[in-house]
Amino acid sequence: MNHAMVRYLIGWILGIEAAFLLLPALTAVIYGEAVVAAYLAAAAVCLAFAFLFCRRRPENTRFYAREGFVTVAMGWIALALTGALPFLFSGEIPSVVNALFETISGFTTTGATILTDVEALSHASLLWRSLTHWVGGMGVLVFMLAILPLAGGHTIYLMRAESPGPSVGKLSPHIRDTAFILYAIYLGLTVCEIVLLLAGGMSFFDAVNTSLATAGTGGFGVWNDSIAHYQSYYLQGVISVFMILFGVNFSVYFLLLTKKLKQAFRIEELRLYLGVIAASALLIAFNIRHLFSGFFDGLHHALFQVASIITTTGFSTADFDQWPAFSKCILVLLMFIGACAGSTGGGIKCSRILLMCKSVKKEMQFLIHPRSIRANCMDGRRVQHEVVRSVNVFLIAYMLLFILSVLALSLTNQDLITNFTAVAATLNNVGPGLELVGPTCNFSFFTPLSKVVLMFDMLAGRLELFPMLLLFTPGTWRRNR
Amino acid sequence: MNHAMVRYLIGWILGIEAAFLLLPALTAVIYGEAVVAAYLAAAAVCLAFAFLFCRRRPENTRFYAREGFVTVAMGWIALALTGALPFLFSGEIPSVVNALFETISGFTTTGATILTDVEALSHASLLWRSLTHWVGGMGVLVFMLAILPLAGGHTIYLMRAESPGPSVGKLSPHIRDTAFILYAIYLGLTVCEIVLLLAGGMSFFDAVNTSLATAGTGGFGVWNDSIAHYQSYYLQGVISVFMILFGVNFSVYFLLLTKKLKQAFRIEELRLYLGVIAASALLIAFNIRHLFSGFFDGLHHALFQVASIITTTGFSTADFDQWPAFSKCILVLLMFIGACAGSTGGGIKCSRILLMCKSVKKEMQFLIHPRSIRANCMDGRRVQHEVVRSVNVFLIAYMLLFILSVLALSLTNQDLITNFTAVAATLNNVGPGLELVGPTCNFSFFTPLSKVVLMFDMLAGRLELFPMLLLFTPGTWRRNR
Repeated sequence: MNHAMVRYLIGWILGIEAAFLLLPALTAVIYGEAVVAAYLAAAAVCLAFAFLFCRRRPENTRFYAREGFVTVAMGWIALALTGALPFLFSGEIPSVVNALFETISGFTTTGATILTDVEALSHASLLWRSLTHWVGGMGVLVFMLAILPLAGGHTIYLMRAESPGPSVGKLSPHIRDTAFILYAIYLGLTVCEIVLLLAGGMSFFDAVNTSLATAGTGGFGVWNDSIAHYQSYYLQGVISVFMILFGVNFSVYFLLLTKKLKQAFRIEELRLYLGVIAASALLIAFNIRHLFSGFFDGLHHALFQVASIITTTGFSTADFDQWPAFSKCILVLLMFIGACAGSTGGGIKCSRILLMCKSVKKEMQFLIHPRSIRANCMDGRRVQHEVVRSVNVFLIAYMLLFILSVLALSLTNQDLITNFTAVAATLNNVGPGLELVGPTCNFSFFTPLSKVVLMFDMLAGRLELFPMLLLFTPGTWRRNR
Repeated sequence: MNHAMVRYLIGWILGIEAAFLLLPALTAVIYGEAVVAAYLAAAAVCLAFAFLFCRRRPENTRFYAREGFVTVAMGWIALALTGALPFLFSGEIPSVVNALFETISGFTTTGATILTDVEALSHASLLWRSLTHWVGGMGVLVFMLAILPLAGGHTIYLMRAESPGPSVGKLSPHIRDTAFILYAIYLGLTVCEIVLLLAGGMSFFDAVNTSLATAGTGGFGVWNDSIAHYQSYYLQGVISVFMILFGVNFSVYFLLLTKKLKQAFRIEELRLYLGVIAASALLIAFNIRHLFSGFFDGLHHALFQVASIITTTGFSTADFDQWPAFSKCILVLLMFIGACAGSTGGGIKCSRILLMCKSVKKEMQFLIHPRSIRANCMDGRRVQHEVVRSVNVFLIAYMLLFILSVLALSLTNQDLITNFTAVAATLNNVGPGLELVGPTCNFSFFTPLSKVVLMFDMLAGRLELFPMLLLFTPGTWRRNR
């Protein structure tokens, strides 16, 4: 374990966070809010740690998978601890547990809140919440890789540990270029959304915040009634479309930019993702048609909710906790399916679901013809055995963590649906669940212990389990072999 | 596909069923009940089909995995269709769907009932319900293998397709001997329980029925309030112990009989199974202590319920739907864990859970030391790659079927907990669930469509998915390669 290198990288992460903290500070200055001091103080703390950790560049810059996982897990915990400071300093969220919950929910792009009145927050804090979504969505280490000339280490390990999905697609032979391209596309799409929202008459502040939260598939809103606040079907439609766009594997955009259209639309994961969205929206629209003024009105809300849940954003235009059981059941299912790998969305990911279905199909063929040996294929290429195995193990680890979390939450004696969907909403980084954690409710009533469990789930969900689980494996901390 | 052989074997299955149907007929004679005609008529129908199917012995007696799966799946469906006849003929369950549901619930040892008043049934029908549990528990094909000299075919395929667990342990080099030993142990244990229950003052009829239902880990009772009817702690205790015993892998008893004690207690699955029972009972006892007159009173009921649920029997001495969320959560979890492989219990099975946990542990070690290559080991032996893969695929197929079933049930707009636990209780062959399908309720209110889904789940759960799923795969029905 190369501790020096881990410490050095965490220092840089905190340095980047300090820079991001200046944006809400600037916002506070513009709106003349007193919280400017809180944000400057938090930035100072980050800078102090960054200076302390990065003072000496490590002699041995080599690091491998193990260091990658630990850096990502510890880096995200450091981000959350310092990111919660402005809420505490300003007194806007006085409880330490709550402030941490809100920050982790932000960075992990979950969007579950402990606030009962979002509108009471300062503009600076609203922006900070949206910014955490944006940085967390694509990943702070990916950001670092894009802007820093990191020499020596196998930086691919950092990227792999932070990026969602069973395997990381290199867009360019150089990791740095890949990271840069990803952030360029990300920024470009975000700006597009801001422009389109402004064109629909949304205020600049709202447009920026909503776009940042959409881009990260986060879900924090600036109004208590989330996106239902904007009655305009145009605005809600734009947000629907962009939620879906940010749930697409970013390598699709790269293929489009490099004019490989055929290849882009042949990606099986993309087809599954769009197919599931279309099918779910139609089924729900049919199921809820009596609740709205017509089928198309219902379809509008169904599509918004489906896009919001499958991409694990968590915005809402309607209280889907009041919808019929069939619709709720589909939405809960979408929480687990999640977006595409290599997007900013959470959940199990479409590519994993696809591989699982293929495994079952293959096994059935094997049972009928035991002597036939076939490999799983995806996008016309053979899937490596390691990838199939890691998908299976991911699913098992996911289920074990899910079960333990529901069990821990049930100690507080809430109903099973609240506990089940609270874990589903945090482990999949969605945000709202059903019953007591439904779209009109919040997570403030949980006990501190339950909040800690949910915070762990949010981090584990965003980092795809293993970085967080490895922190608790003794072998991780052993000195070099 | 060797259709002739499949037909021939199904003929034998129906012949065996005809023989079993004579037992309730005899009971009806003893108690002077009019239903004797219904049971004799049903036996006659079975015999007629048996004669029709077995008239000509197939020339080609060879069959492989594919034929094994199809025989088991079709054989069980044939069993259910004819087993429901006495309920229909006697008019005790006039609806076809309900009669089928009750019969499938019996043979698959689920124990979910559509009857609102069990006590209104004739003695003959009560015995028939218990008998279906007993035959279904160890398997009708295993029974056939034990008594028939089946030459030619690879009979191991029949055994594999019907026996629960990731791999079938041969107790003897000959399949016939293995099947015989299994049924001998099974019968021996059942008789032991009858004797012990009689010693506690239970009537002969009750003792036989309760023991048959315990042996098959079924759960049909002869009283409306299940085992709570017998206030005696001795009787409830005996049933607790025997439920646990019937959930143990039967190869453990074979090892004990052949005096390999050390080897028997070293089996990891057994340790996990007993460990989970002990831990769950203690946790629940602590959680429900305020509901009973003391910790030990609570422990008694907790142990009974834990044993009943983990072995997927489904008896109850208390309405656990009224227990706190934590206890309910543990019980729901136990439904999924299930008993040991090679027992009469259902669920995912302890050995699969064990292998899954080992896979996660191995993956974590692999992530830390990518160059270390280790195999999963169980009971000191290396687990074959095929077994690990089949466990993973089983889990995926299980989840997919689970999800689709919950979705289908949610069309009827019951609450999610009812739908979720109804599927959990049928797919795992437990019986009772929570809310509307809790231990004091029954499955009669479901729509016919939902009942069909649940029937499929019961069969799929008992036969461990693939025999039933393969029926819907076109490749299964293709002529020989």
